[in-house]
Amino acid sequence: MFERRQPIPIGEAVKKIMEYQIPGKMEYVLIEESYGRFLAEDLIATCDVPHFDRAPYDGFAVRSIDTTNASQSNPIEFEVIDHIGAGMVSNKVVKDNQAVRIMTGAMMPEGTDAVVMLEVAKTYEKNGTPYMSIKRSFKKGENVSFRGEDATKGEILVKKGTLINPGIQAMLAAFGYKKVPVAQKPIVGLFATGTELLEVEEPLLPGKIRNSNSHMIAAQIERAGASVQYFGKLPDEFDTCFEAVKDVIGKVDLLVTTGGVSVGDFDYLPEIYKKLNAEVLFNKVAMRPGSVTTVAHYNGKLLFGLSGNPSACYVGFELFVRPIIRKQLFTEKPHLRKEKAKLDVDFPKANPFTRLVRSTVTIDGGRLRVSPSGLDKSNIIMSLAGANSLMILPGGTRGIQAGSEVDVLLLEDQTGSEWPW
Amino acid sequence: MFERRQPIPIGEAVKKIMEYQIPGKMEYVLIEESYGRFLAEDLIATCDVPHFDRAPYDGFAVRSIDTTNASQSNPIEFEVIDHIGAGMVSNKVVKDNQAVRIMTGAMMPEGTDAVVMLEVAKTYEKNGTPYMSIKRSFKKGENVSFRGEDATKGEILVKKGTLINPGIQAMLAAFGYKKVPVAQKPIVGLFATGTELLEVEEPLLPGKIRNSNSHMIAAQIERAGASVQYFGKLPDEFDTCFEAVKDVIGKVDLLVTTGGVSVGDFDYLPEIYKKLNAEVLFNKVAMRPGSVTTVAHYNGKLLFGLSGNPSACYVGFELFVRPIIRKQLFTEKPHLRKEKAKLDVDFPKANPFTRLVRSTVTIDGGRLRVSPSGLDKSNIIMSLAGANSLMILPGGTRGIQAGSEVDVLLLEDQTGSEWPW
Repeated sequence: MFERRQPIPIGEAVKKIMEYQIPGKMEYVLIEESYGRFLAEDLIATCDVPHFDRAPYDGFAVRSIDTTNASQSNPIEFEVIDHIGAGMVSNKVVKDNQAVRIMTGAMMPEGTDAVVMLEVAKTYEKNGTPYMSIKRSFKKGENVSFRGEDATKGEILVKKGTLINPGIQAMLAAFGYKKVPVAQKPIVGLFATGTELLEVEEPLLPGKIRNSNSHMIAAQIERAGASVQYFGKLPDEFDTCFEAVKDVIGKVDLLVTTGGVSVGDFDYLPEIYKKLNAEVLFNKVAMRPGSVTTVAHYNGKLLFGLSGNPSACYVGFELFVRPIIRKQLFTEKPHLRKEKAKLDVDFPKANPFTRLVRSTVTIDGGRLRVSPSGLDKSNIIMSLAGANSLMILPGGTRGIQAGSEVDVLLLEDQTGSEWPW
Repeated sequence: MFERRQPIPIGEAVKKIMEYQIPGKMEYVLIEESYGRFLAEDLIATCDVPHFDRAPYDGFAVRSIDTTNASQSNPIEFEVIDHIGAGMVSNKVVKDNQAVRIMTGAMMPEGTDAVVMLEVAKTYEKNGTPYMSIKRSFKKGENVSFRGEDATKGEILVKKGTLINPGIQAMLAAFGYKKVPVAQKPIVGLFATGTELLEVEEPLLPGKIRNSNSHMIAAQIERAGASVQYFGKLPDEFDTCFEAVKDVIGKVDLLVTTGGVSVGDFDYLPEIYKKLNAEVLFNKVAMRPGSVTTVAHYNGKLLFGLSGNPSACYVGFELFVRPIIRKQLFTEKPHLRKEKAKLDVDFPKANPFTRLVRSTVTIDGGRLRVSPSGLDKSNIIMSLAGANSLMILPGGTRGIQAGSEVDVLLLEDQTGSEWPW
């Protein structure tokens, strides 16, 4: 009567999935739409930065050689022959004891090699001609930002697979990337299964609940960096489910279903995989929640059968689906970032298998602390709202004391890790 | 010749701005579009969860009273009168020594008050009628998820101003929020000023640079949760700038300009504020970079004059513009999250004023560490790419040693703080 399933360790399950990774694809988007996307190529300096010698301060561009003998007792006078702001170019060539009044960011005029800051110069006019004088000498190159000082043409500045943040946006603009090569967002198909499911807008009925998993997973898909294609909910009927799954596989990069993977009398996903002739990578993982997570490979696509239980579904997505999405976004760190944190409260529950507890990580005096974000009942969606992490409690423990150091996986962090187990 | 400006402390500058906060507005969006938005009302449980007593496991629903005498030596037999999955409702009333085969999530049939898990029951048939027997007793309520156990109708589950994450999405769905009340995204108008600026797609010219600030700020506006309306770049010409600024104020919630706020000869923003009769809240802040940041109030709108220097511009946005945006998104913690971190390297530069250094925070053994993300030249956009934080070095120090504890503001974190200074 019972189907006997062989549980495998989480790390092994993840490994089996990652062996089937599908290569990422590139597309170009306008720079205005590139924030939050992942670079599909290295960002390369297309020019020197700055690409001309320039003034970093408001002042006077001079020939340093003319300042050599300037001192408190020997002020040296310069005729001011031009006046330029950023973006203007002086067409004068600066000669002996001449200067150009120059604003921050403007190009150094021909002949000059130092900038006298405005506040150290005395300015005046003689017969309608502007002059300035200084009482100290300036070295060659003093107060000049030199061409190539910040970046050299050809230099790799940001690696492929990096998430585009505001600073990278600035660099893309500076280097003329009007169109930015970014990773295409993988299209993740999504079905919710279960006769008990109502749509969000439907009134409650006895025995039925609103479909919350697909909205949750849709947000998780978006957080991971992919696009969701929601195909609706399916009743617990074998033929309907089989046809629906078969029908959409060709239209998506990955397919996620929620529910129907357990050993209940109306759980048809295992049979569907069988009839499809899909290769089941695993159908039981040594973890709580989410042990019944089932992943199969069919026709070059991965099919993720997540539990219908909200918490198991959530955890299964983050452990198994997220990394394959991130890999297609070219990142070298596709897994959730793993860090150490100090447990704030006792966790008395025994863990026969590795337990992933939805948790809230806080920072106190520069140290990570963690506590469960709700009661650890796997059917409670409430505890998901405050969760910013999953605490990993190793299998085979009899509960863990407050103050212990535990591993946590950070859910809202973009850093990632190469391999979490 | 010099305009003398009176620098004020950062905290005071922030306070002056926050006094002018404009109330946030609400709009409804479909639940499918609500991920990443901010709740404009508390999320309230519109029903009990679960809203009916249900089975948390696959098994048999029974009357506990019938199990009282069951033991290893005294198995008790039950006739299985129905078979239901999640979403189905049994129309049978369970009587003496009867049971209903029930799957996880299904509603408890009338008369039953306990669930016998599948694996502890022995199942068989007699004359075509299904039976099961058990060798232990079950308490009233054992293995039942009771109505209202997870949440009670009317309970406030998530506070207004909270960012909608995948867990909150699930809750919105469960409680029937087809349309979600979210904060309208404030519209932030943006001008870049500077004759030196080229568009991203233009080839470089002597003395000119591509406009990177507006792309950077646009991304920062998006990260903060607002919408950007970019009005283009303006040359350093008073009349053009004045008309342009005056023209757009009515169309936006806030106006940000980059450049033109310093005391250079072509910096016209101060004069523009004057001619508009805008009230200047401050025009100098005791900080580096970004000391020339100028903020004015005009006709119920705030005008943010950020420096044209990329780093100063970046920092000015995060300190002064972000909190006013977040406040309009109803959050109680509009400022950047401030935490302690251990400085990884010496920072030998003296700080006459408070210095904000673009930095990278890492976590090592559960502790925050920080190091500058690039050379601390304020004209270097390169160091912005790797920055996930701003390190705060207090004014009046002569440099800070590696190993010291410093404050950091986390740029990619959504937690925020109520008041950072």
